[in-house]
Amino acid sequence: MTGTGSLLSHLECRSCCTRVEADRAAGVCPTCGLALFAVYRLDDLDWGSWSASLRDRPRTLWRYRELLPVRGSEAIASLGEGGSPVLPLTAAPEAPDVRLLLKDDGGLPTGSFKARGMTVAVSRARELGLRSLFVPSAGNAGVALAAYAARAGINATVYLPERTPRPMKEAARLYGATVVELPGTLREVGASARSREGAGGSFDMSTLREPYRLEGKKTMGWEIFEQLAAEGMPDAIVYPTGGGTGLVGMHKAFQELRSLGRLERMPRLYAVQPEHCAPVVRALHEDAARVTPWDDPSTIAPGLLVPAPFSSERILEAVRESKGGGVTVTDAEIVGAVRDLARRDGVSASPEGAATYASLRALVRDGRVRSGERVLLYNTGSGLPFSITELESAVAASAAA
Amino acid sequence: MTGTGSLLSHLECRSCCTRVEADRAAGVCPTCGLALFAVYRLDDLDWGSWSASLRDRPRTLWRYRELLPVRGSEAIASLGEGGSPVLPLTAAPEAPDVRLLLKDDGGLPTGSFKARGMTVAVSRARELGLRSLFVPSAGNAGVALAAYAARAGINATVYLPERTPRPMKEAARLYGATVVELPGTLREVGASARSREGAGGSFDMSTLREPYRLEGKKTMGWEIFEQLAAEGMPDAIVYPTGGGTGLVGMHKAFQELRSLGRLERMPRLYAVQPEHCAPVVRALHEDAARVTPWDDPSTIAPGLLVPAPFSSERILEAVRESKGGGVTVTDAEIVGAVRDLARRDGVSASPEGAATYASLRALVRDGRVRSGERVLLYNTGSGLPFSITELESAVAASAAA
Repeated sequence: MTGTGSLLSHLECRSCCTRVEADRAAGVCPTCGLALFAVYRLDDLDWGSWSASLRDRPRTLWRYRELLPVRGSEAIASLGEGGSPVLPLTAAPEAPDVRLLLKDDGGLPTGSFKARGMTVAVSRARELGLRSLFVPSAGNAGVALAAYAARAGINATVYLPERTPRPMKEAARLYGATVVELPGTLREVGASARSREGAGGSFDMSTLREPYRLEGKKTMGWEIFEQLAAEGMPDAIVYPTGGGTGLVGMHKAFQELRSLGRLERMPRLYAVQPEHCAPVVRALHEDAARVTPWDDPSTIAPGLLVPAPFSSERILEAVRESKGGGVTVTDAEIVGAVRDLARRDGVSASPEGAATYASLRALVRDGRVRSGERVLLYNTGSGLPFSITELESAVAASAAA
Repeated sequence: MTGTGSLLSHLECRSCCTRVEADRAAGVCPTCGLALFAVYRLDDLDWGSWSASLRDRPRTLWRYRELLPVRGSEAIASLGEGGSPVLPLTAAPEAPDVRLLLKDDGGLPTGSFKARGMTVAVSRARELGLRSLFVPSAGNAGVALAAYAARAGINATVYLPERTPRPMKEAARLYGATVVELPGTLREVGASARSREGAGGSFDMSTLREPYRLEGKKTMGWEIFEQLAAEGMPDAIVYPTGGGTGLVGMHKAFQELRSLGRLERMPRLYAVQPEHCAPVVRALHEDAARVTPWDDPSTIAPGLLVPAPFSSERILEAVRESKGGGVTVTDAEIVGAVRDLARRDGVSASPEGAATYASLRALVRDGRVRSGERVLLYNTGSGLPFSITELESAVAASAAA
């Protein structure tokens, strides 16, 4: 085996501080049931020689292998994910004096940022000897699990809400995964999936219910840091928030960078949610410790239809510690932003990604983003699977209802 | 203006050797009407310092800016294109002793390799002061032109055959391009588009009818060379051939590398075409100097529905000089290959890209690819816009007809 040089030490719960051994498969904290976090021996990283060695590594997220949990390179199931571009955007009329950047994960394998988490989690699952994985998903995560499980030669079962867009169901099946369609929202589908799987030996790959998808998502933060080394970190990062791992992951990356003495000021993290499914934004406004489930959620952005994200304590913590906040947008604003990004900047964004652009007006109006600031918007997925006319029809239908 | 260091010298026709000034907009050879090629002052490139400087450049194809035609970096309209991964594939039962690699352009902006040509051609068009561009397209090229024209702030008109998949028509419109749907094949649409545009001032961006899309495509060859520096060039490259610029572009890259003293043996280039639209393969078999138009063409792979590629002299030359050849596949084999790549390797390929995988059986059977060889397949586009059930229905319908 060729070692990756991973500095993984152990797993740790950030709520009750329980420590868990890392080299056996682990889900949530055995004490309190919340998310476990990977801890690395950062003191063993020699920054100078490490950052010099990065120059000659391929651009995939595996370039950060010392800070990822996989110990042997043979276990890595990669489709070339990571290293997505940071694009300058033209000045938006809604925020004329703000310098906009867009980190575009639309070109990642399977068309979304979910590839980041799944390449790491599936590779680690293979290394730990797991032979069968399942995930409840709004769509993209299920497709990503199916692709990486196929790459790794592991069985996968994907549980999807019946109303998931058909192309996503088809894609997961194409990769050879078992696809189970269930009624209800992602929350209900998740509960039902876990009850069906029981202790049957298949491993739950749900967001934050296993510790390593977060490590893959963390590379979003590492890449922003590395790609903006010359011009410096942005003042704020605006992120479309469904399950919220991206926020928690970027925050973890920035914490690691701070521990390594490389980051003084953390960018403010803003969570964008659709007005009819905004549990994280509501909890931020109410100063709550955790999210309460959103009743009767709806939005045209499938990845944001998450009424009760798991381990929301960590999402709220990430936003608050960064001195960021929450903001909501309407579905009509999201569709308008898809159009604006395409026409003004030649960018094809998913509805989720476009939601960040849609939020600029409110962020500027409320003084949370100020003139002269540099703001990075995160596009989490490709616009290719979405039809603009179908999105517009959905908005019109919901306005008429 | 910040100079790119472009070593562009002039344009040249490879058929009649006419030289054309490069710093004015130019289409085809004014003498013989065939494609013009960009010529660079390669002697002025100091290989040692140049290749060292590549280490610190972003991964986009603009890293090769000295060998691209754009002189000022302000003109560059980029969406982060290039640097696509080269993935090892598992051994295919159809070619068990062949080591397979897949270069995957599915994650490029707008979902296909067309981004390579258009980022360069549109940037150069902007630099040369062109304000309005048009292209007849089977779909992907039109979408790419629309996106890059939006990025560059230039008007674009896209002419598409009526039977182009709807998502492509919609995407081109979303970027703000004027979309004109016309009856017939791409050949007929092209003729009609050129007659409508006449001398109206809009510039024809058709494959090989303007000299700089080829320069963008050339980066496919440069990337393969750079990404496989450690293990060496593949023995063969298998490429899905519609307009054929990719073959001509890779061949040009390898010629440049040879001129620079960096390449001894050129990989054999194989052109894959569908059995019912195989003008290039037929011309290769008949040892013809140029392609004759294919009557009544049909295939499920829209990018391969090109019955009479322009400047086919250059395509045939590239294949012959590399000691490669042509191979056909059926639509059913293409769909089977889409499935196999997804299940065996976790790869989502376009039908065009999957055609290369489908051709392995014939290439091995005929002894054109041999045991122990390393073969690179080129996936030119994302599988995301395609539905496997629709592809299968199309095959079944055509079998029944």
